Amino acid sequence: MADKHADYSVYLVTENYDSHCSDQYMTKIKQALEGGISLLQLRAKHASSKVFYELAEELKSMAHACNVPLIINDRVDIALAVDADGIHVGQDDLPAGKVRKIIGPDKILGVSCSTVEEAIKAEQDGADYLGCGSVFPTKTKSDATMIELDELKRIKENVSIPVVAIGGITEENVNELLKRNVDGIAVVSAILSQPDVKKAAKILNEKMKKAGSL
Amino acid sequence: MADKHADYSVYLVTENYDSHCSDQYMTKIKQALEGGISLLQLRAKHASSKVFYELAEELKSMAHACNVPLIINDRVDIALAVDADGIHVGQDDLPAGKVRKIIGPDKILGVSCSTVEEAIKAEQDGADYLGCGSVFPTKTKSDATMIELDELKRIKENVSIPVVAIGGITEENVNELLKRNVDGIAVVSAILSQPDVKKAAKILNEKMKKAGSL
Ligand code: NI
Repeated sequence: MADKHADYSVYLVTENYDSHCSDQYMTKIKQALEGGISLLQLRAKHASSKVFYELAEELKSMAHACNVPLIINDRVDIALAVDADGIHVGQDDLPAGKVRKIIGPDKILGVSCSTVEEAIKAEQDGADYLGCGSVFPTKTKSDATMIELDELKRIKENVSIPVVAIGGITEENVNELLKRNVDGIAVVSAILSQPDVKKAAKILNEKMKKAGSL
Repeated sequence: MADKHADYSVYLVTENYDSHCSDQYMTKIKQALEGGISLLQLRAKHASSKVFYELAEELKSMAHACNVPLIINDRVDIALAVDADGIHVGQDDLPAGKVRKIIGPDKILGVSCSTVEEAIKAEQDGADYLGCGSVFPTKTKSDATMIELDELKRIKENVSIPVVAIGGITEENVNELLKRNVDGIAVVSAILSQPDVKKAAKILNEKMKKAGSL
């Protein structure tokens, strides 16, 4: 699971963990793993460090059982504590260069970017992939910066690491992104808010596979 | 600054950082350092990782200029990023044993305890000191567990590492603690909420010095 050449095609980012619905939360992630997501990112901004840590341990077992790497959002200490496969930081988190120094060369480092400048900087700082968005309006993160699809194309042209599109992606609009040659899509509600979570993951997986073999 | 035999006598724990009063926040901490606090702990539970990191960098410079070590509350990743002198974890944070593995042997590790059992476990897990409280009712942390002064004495008898009392300590009630042979007092408002912050730190410093030389 320490292979840095991860498959970014269908990258599930969890909703911020809410302890009041923990059973449902776990069930949905399990279904998404069964449906064929290729990467899993855990977010738990409002949880205590202890709860975040225990949750990360549990999701790591679940993900690794399906050969899916686990990425931790923001909290480098949690990633180290559970020996996760990687860490994802945004522009309001620890600087990417500092994170790379702390985690060493082997763990995956992802960085959120919304401009070509941020993307080039992130690659220089040691990012293994970029999360770029929001490509579409999103309810999950109402304060999200928007990014033009042309900027996404420019980012792709200016870096050599994989570019994952994020924000408001659905089964319906995903084709627009595939035309821009993104290396993967990161989704939350396109999988977790669907009536059949496993099926939603499966459909996105098939769309991405088909696009990859064009 | 890597001396693990820190002076715990007057240990200032900051209020959770509030970006709306950052100037005042910095000024007060500077005054407390000038007044003679022996150790500084930064708490910033609601700050973004980026803000927490920048704040930690700044407080580290300020503290080191006065030969005072900086301890980071909860966030092991921030402590590593700024190369702080230590980390303090509570019972809702990462397990102390995990933290010790991540930070290595040289950084100070403090653990909050309110029972003899927790104290013995923390020492086994690699704690360098214990923060025990609340010894008195406190407004700073209204949900704090209370600890009897007799339990504090029992903790002191059952571990060999320094024991720092915390919670509701004031210039008036501090003598009650000194009778229990605590190694230090951790305070927030007894210094930061006083009209003359520097003087408040100085008075506590003198009280502790006098107690130490009895
Ligand atoms: Ni792995």
